[in-house]
Amino acid sequence: MRTRIELTTDQIAALGALVDGRISTNDSVLDLHGRDESAFPPVKPSAVITVHTTQEVSDVLKYCNSHDIPVVAFGAGTSLEGHVLPLFGGISLDLSAMDKILEISPDDLTVRVQAGVKRMALNKKISSDGLFFSVDPGADATIGGMTSTGAAGTTTVRYGSMRENVLKLTAVLADGTIIETGRETRKLSAGYDLTRLIVGSEGTLAIVTEITLRVFGIPEKMAAAVSRFPTLADGVQAAIAVVRSGVAIARCEFLDAQCIKNVNAHDGLNLEEAPTLLFEFHGSPRSVEEDAHVVQEIAAEFGGTNFEWTSEEGARRKLWQARHNAYWAGISAHPGKRAISTDAAVPLSKLAEAVALTEKILSQSAFPFSILGHVADGNFHAFIITDPNKPEELPAVRDLTHHMTDAIIDMGGTCTGEHGIGAGKISSLEKEAGPGSMAVMLSIKKALDPKGILNPGKIFA
Amino acid sequence: MRTRIELTTDQIAALGALVDGRISTNDSVLDLHGRDESAFPPVKPSAVITVHTTQEVSDVLKYCNSHDIPVVAFGAGTSLEGHVLPLFGGISLDLSAMDKILEISPDDLTVRVQAGVKRMALNKKISSDGLFFSVDPGADATIGGMTSTGAAGTTTVRYGSMRENVLKLTAVLADGTIIETGRETRKLSAGYDLTRLIVGSEGTLAIVTEITLRVFGIPEKMAAAVSRFPTLADGVQAAIAVVRSGVAIARCEFLDAQCIKNVNAHDGLNLEEAPTLLFEFHGSPRSVEEDAHVVQEIAAEFGGTNFEWTSEEGARRKLWQARHNAYWAGISAHPGKRAISTDAAVPLSKLAEAVALTEKILSQSAFPFSILGHVADGNFHAFIITDPNKPEELPAVRDLTHHMTDAIIDMGGTCTGEHGIGAGKISSLEKEAGPGSMAVMLSIKKALDPKGILNPGKIFA
Repeated sequence: MRTRIELTTDQIAALGALVDGRISTNDSVLDLHGRDESAFPPVKPSAVITVHTTQEVSDVLKYCNSHDIPVVAFGAGTSLEGHVLPLFGGISLDLSAMDKILEISPDDLTVRVQAGVKRMALNKKISSDGLFFSVDPGADATIGGMTSTGAAGTTTVRYGSMRENVLKLTAVLADGTIIETGRETRKLSAGYDLTRLIVGSEGTLAIVTEITLRVFGIPEKMAAAVSRFPTLADGVQAAIAVVRSGVAIARCEFLDAQCIKNVNAHDGLNLEEAPTLLFEFHGSPRSVEEDAHVVQEIAAEFGGTNFEWTSEEGARRKLWQARHNAYWAGISAHPGKRAISTDAAVPLSKLAEAVALTEKILSQSAFPFSILGHVADGNFHAFIITDPNKPEELPAVRDLTHHMTDAIIDMGGTCTGEHGIGAGKISSLEKEAGPGSMAVMLSIKKALDPKGILNPGKIFA
Repeated sequence: MRTRIELTTDQIAALGALVDGRISTNDSVLDLHGRDESAFPPVKPSAVITVHTTQEVSDVLKYCNSHDIPVVAFGAGTSLEGHVLPLFGGISLDLSAMDKILEISPDDLTVRVQAGVKRMALNKKISSDGLFFSVDPGADATIGGMTSTGAAGTTTVRYGSMRENVLKLTAVLADGTIIETGRETRKLSAGYDLTRLIVGSEGTLAIVTEITLRVFGIPEKMAAAVSRFPTLADGVQAAIAVVRSGVAIARCEFLDAQCIKNVNAHDGLNLEEAPTLLFEFHGSPRSVEEDAHVVQEIAAEFGGTNFEWTSEEGARRKLWQARHNAYWAGISAHPGKRAISTDAAVPLSKLAEAVALTEKILSQSAFPFSILGHVADGNFHAFIITDPNKPEELPAVRDLTHHMTDAIIDMGGTCTGEHGIGAGKISSLEKEAGPGSMAVMLSIKKALDPKGILNPGKIFA
């Protein structure tokens, strides 16, 4: 059993000397680095170090490795699964000051950034080159954090997740070794795919300091469409039929009636409170119009009504407002409460069944909830509302989510499509991956981080 | 220094008992398993075992691991880099009889196959469900082999390589442990991405026995276009501009004038002997027409002339005939000779420079050559013609290709976009990946295959 590591005064001095004194044990700084957007109780690090360079990360890790001090990387603190919590004390390594966009290559459709760059700042900067970075989790996360959790978002169906969009990494191993993985090429078959091994490894194998990303040209035209359905199952079936049709959807999101109710209340809107599918299309003016027509026809086959579509920018943003505000609208419907999000993904053929089962299980519980998701990817979230002042609710929610997750895994799905394992889903991962794969993961972990200093307590029990 | 392992009579008997006697030391069988489509001199295994089930693979590996017997998997023998050569003797494990298509799921757009299924047989089978499997290396390789080399092809620009299209694997570790990696979901963020670690690991980490693949709906319409350019550089620049424009090209291939000459001679055609770009578009009738128009305009900006396009099936196939026959036409232009293919990939902004450099270096050599490639991915091949009866040519070709590869790596490229490392590119990989990443790869290799029985002599020196 691991115990919590507190740094000694000597260790603090020695580490401070490596980073021009940028080490803090100030209580409010520790507090800020001891929480994220998950429902896990806060855990303070013993000290917070702010790094400015890859070399500093290397120096700090080398010291921590030889002194058995745990290190957890910190970016924007937007994890939903407790990734940044220093469960065993030690160092919270803050990379948010490494926020430089190092290179923009319009001809290559790539950008190279430091790990602390946030996705919205990146998009703002590269838009003047006619480019955009596609991966859009709800939060304004850092690229380093998104890399480490293997983040995805609403455009994954068209442009891929971090796994498809990270081409090259600079990362620091537990012992301080700096490595580069991958190449800035679109195709690569040279040795083991270390890039994709580190993407999604949640800071347990290495700390990522620089990332080369694929970006895309901003499409000539974007259009949006919305359709309402009699039942949740009808909407899900329509989404699957759209995917099968091969229409090049850029986004396809589902909201249940409760989500729409919340948004109406939150934003003073008057949207039809029915299961709703939202689409976005990217392309030429003709192609987005054609895509919208095909989707309208398919939606109608599944009882879709009240179909609206537009390629006018303001109207398009308005159609999507319900989706963008769903999370906050869900929370503000329950003042003082917070939402815990599930993250199931299933094969498309099981999606209707999985969503129906989720709705049934949650309807039988006492917790308010809503369901939405990236249906074209088979990935959906249930937002379960809990009271942070009633910590006794957490075990009940955990039982509920584990009950649902077990059923999802049994139908061939996964406990996490995009949020990662973190601290709360380890038993689900064990069930899902099985003992053979878990042993392989652990043997890789031990090969790369034999002392286990990198983000202990995550992914592995 | 490893030495060659010959099996003892007892070992042959013991292994034969594990597989109903399907072990052979017949010289012609050994010979057949000691060569592939590379130019490496043949190396016979000590014995060939034909397996029918994952359990048999497990039983054989368990035995071989405890007796230090090397094992190299064998499928169709179409590797271009000597992957299947048993450099240190031991067993060639033939999986070609594991050729069952286990499951076709049109609703999930997935198929599950045994490793020995060949890609053309798969496509023939699933076409009746309106589906196709997109990855198309030149050869009719097995899905297991394509998985192990991380294969790609002409449609990678649109549909991805094996890395993007393998969702789930069953694989057997060196000690016989059977593992399953990944899930049959479109998104997954659950623990380390073992699937993508094994894809492209060239049989050095595990032997793949079952694969779940993403497949796609056959597009409503396909159209083709061709354009000729004054110089090779013009054609390459036009291809890059098309990629940047965001037109959804399904294929974009480049052929130099020599390729066209060879095809004219081989097929009795009368194509204009100029640098040529070929395109394919997939979508609705309107969208493919629109795409072709946009491409025509862009091609014209770069001096593209003699533009032809068609969506009529027969004419489309005829336009692409030059590409499909380029390899064989190149060889038949030099009776009795064989072609060695390079596999460089560079960032798009370096592509014109990289192709020009390749052409310059090869023009100064005595070897006939032609250049073609998947330009939209920055990946291209030089076919260098050698005489198999003059083995002294091989070191000269190796010097030439290593000279070119060094330059490619220096400009940020890779020694292999899709063929893999195999036996001949190890020094290039070391230069490209650097000592840090090589050490990580080796530590993973040692963690998963501590005795080094899986495909020794590949990837690592």
